[in-house]
Amino acid sequence: MIPFSLTILGCSSATPSIERGQTAQLLNIHEQLFLIDCGEGTQLQLKRFEIKIQHINHIFISHLHGDHYFGLIGLISTLHLHGRKNELHIYANAELENIINIQLKASNTTLLYPLIFHTLQYDKPVMLLENEELTVQTILLKHTVPTCGFLFREKERERNINKEIIQKIKIPFSEFEKIKKGADYIASDGTIYENQILTHTPPAPRSFAYCTDTAYFEPIIEQIKKVDLLYFETTFMQERASDAKDKMHATTVDAATIALKAQVKKLLIGHYSARYKDLSPLLEECKQVFENTFLTEDGQRFEV
Amino acid sequence: MIPFSLTILGCSSATPSIERGQTAQLLNIHEQLFLIDCGEGTQLQLKRFEIKIQHINHIFISHLHGDHYFGLIGLISTLHLHGRKNELHIYANAELENIINIQLKASNTTLLYPLIFHTLQYDKPVMLLENEELTVQTILLKHTVPTCGFLFREKERERNINKEIIQKIKIPFSEFEKIKKGADYIASDGTIYENQILTHTPPAPRSFAYCTDTAYFEPIIEQIKKVDLLYFETTFMQERASDAKDKMHATTVDAATIALKAQVKKLLIGHYSARYKDLSPLLEECKQVFENTFLTEDGQRFEV
Repeated sequence: MIPFSLTILGCSSATPSIERGQTAQLLNIHEQLFLIDCGEGTQLQLKRFEIKIQHINHIFISHLHGDHYFGLIGLISTLHLHGRKNELHIYANAELENIINIQLKASNTTLLYPLIFHTLQYDKPVMLLENEELTVQTILLKHTVPTCGFLFREKERERNINKEIIQKIKIPFSEFEKIKKGADYIASDGTIYENQILTHTPPAPRSFAYCTDTAYFEPIIEQIKKVDLLYFETTFMQERASDAKDKMHATTVDAATIALKAQVKKLLIGHYSARYKDLSPLLEECKQVFENTFLTEDGQRFEV
Repeated sequence: MIPFSLTILGCSSATPSIERGQTAQLLNIHEQLFLIDCGEGTQLQLKRFEIKIQHINHIFISHLHGDHYFGLIGLISTLHLHGRKNELHIYANAELENIINIQLKASNTTLLYPLIFHTLQYDKPVMLLENEELTVQTILLKHTVPTCGFLFREKERERNINKEIIQKIKIPFSEFEKIKKGADYIASDGTIYENQILTHTPPAPRSFAYCTDTAYFEPIIEQIKKVDLLYFETTFMQERASDAKDKMHATTVDAATIALKAQVKKLLIGHYSARYKDLSPLLEECKQVFENTFLTEDGQRFEV
């Protein structure tokens, strides 16, 4: 199975606790590692959950509230101290570059590797990254400071060769690439073999949408329609809907309603207020609206 | 016993590990709490070791290498989120104020409490803080960026009244304050009672010196002469003396030699390079020069 998995590094909102780190998640798509948000202590969580930090090449920071990025400067420094040479790409609000640079300058640090900043914009969703295997786009969210979510989509994979048939017909190796891309095969005697008998259909492309921090915001729905896995913040239970509105955060019911309307396959919740020691009431409240909901906790891994 | 105790919050150099946090120590002098350095994750260590963070009013940052201050912005934010109203004083390199302010601005945060920066200077030792019970002075160190150590001294305490004698002679309460300060007492019949029979001598004032990061630097000796407790970094064992010299850090033998020459009572070592899993060889090397040496590890408390 080609990996598409999400590891929760921190599920707390605002202040960290012994049990719940500040927001950070690690997404593995085909062994490409993406770090999404980086609260204080993220480098330790990465170590705790045995993730190879030098394999992370792209870091996405949703917004500049500290619980989503205070761990970034420490991670950048550690990568440097451990001798990193490869480029590291940061996707964030433009101001983050100044925040990182002022700290590097204060310690006279010239990084051993290129640190490349990509500026988020907030007026329309944009493509941040595209390579052979996947795309990453922004999702417009609604919070007290400019904030983006991130939508990761696996690309359509090539068709899988049906080895049995191919051997039987004795198709030359040189034709394989075309066939994987969907071509039929015409044998030397003129027989046409249709692609669908030569290949198996590959698994459907998988997708993950990351939405935090945000108030309930209907325009999100179209942007994340039918994703396989949605992470949506639930800072509060529904009884605190007015706190949520004031602080532009989401409740359990907000998250589940978005999941339902967007017809996603599975909902993960997190970014819990520190007031909730027992999380099961949050889960129950979500499930009443959207059954396929799961709590996130630090160290958990979800396969898509 | 009036407290004078040191809690180790982190004993690692450069990069943190699960077992060893980045540099931070909490000094309790007469229930006044002083935080010294504040590496990433310090707020969690404070929580882990059950220290009341709102009781910290003064934070001393030795220098602007990240492993000594990356946790400060998170702690400042948490104090704010928990409703702090009292002043918080930060003693640090002038640039730290800019580093903190750019991050507060990025999140549109106006702190609920006054955050007061005091700028360190590096040409001579200065008094940073003086109150009824103690003084805090800088110690000049030698490192790759401007760095200060900190010397905490308890003030001479008032003499303790000998209750038995006082009752016997029937000295009025109104005289007590003068007697505690060392005055003799002249009774109405003209008899002179010398202070030394009216009072007990209080315990000698205690002192703690914090020296990290620094190379071996002889001028430190005079500044910390005869302190009760010295914390001195030992990033390296003696076999790595040339690494220590290049990076302006101290070895085991450097620390122990300073302790010996300064005639301190007790030496604590720490700021260990991550390469040392077993710390006992570092301790042994120190003890060969200065017997009364102790390792520090996260969560340990030392009474002075």
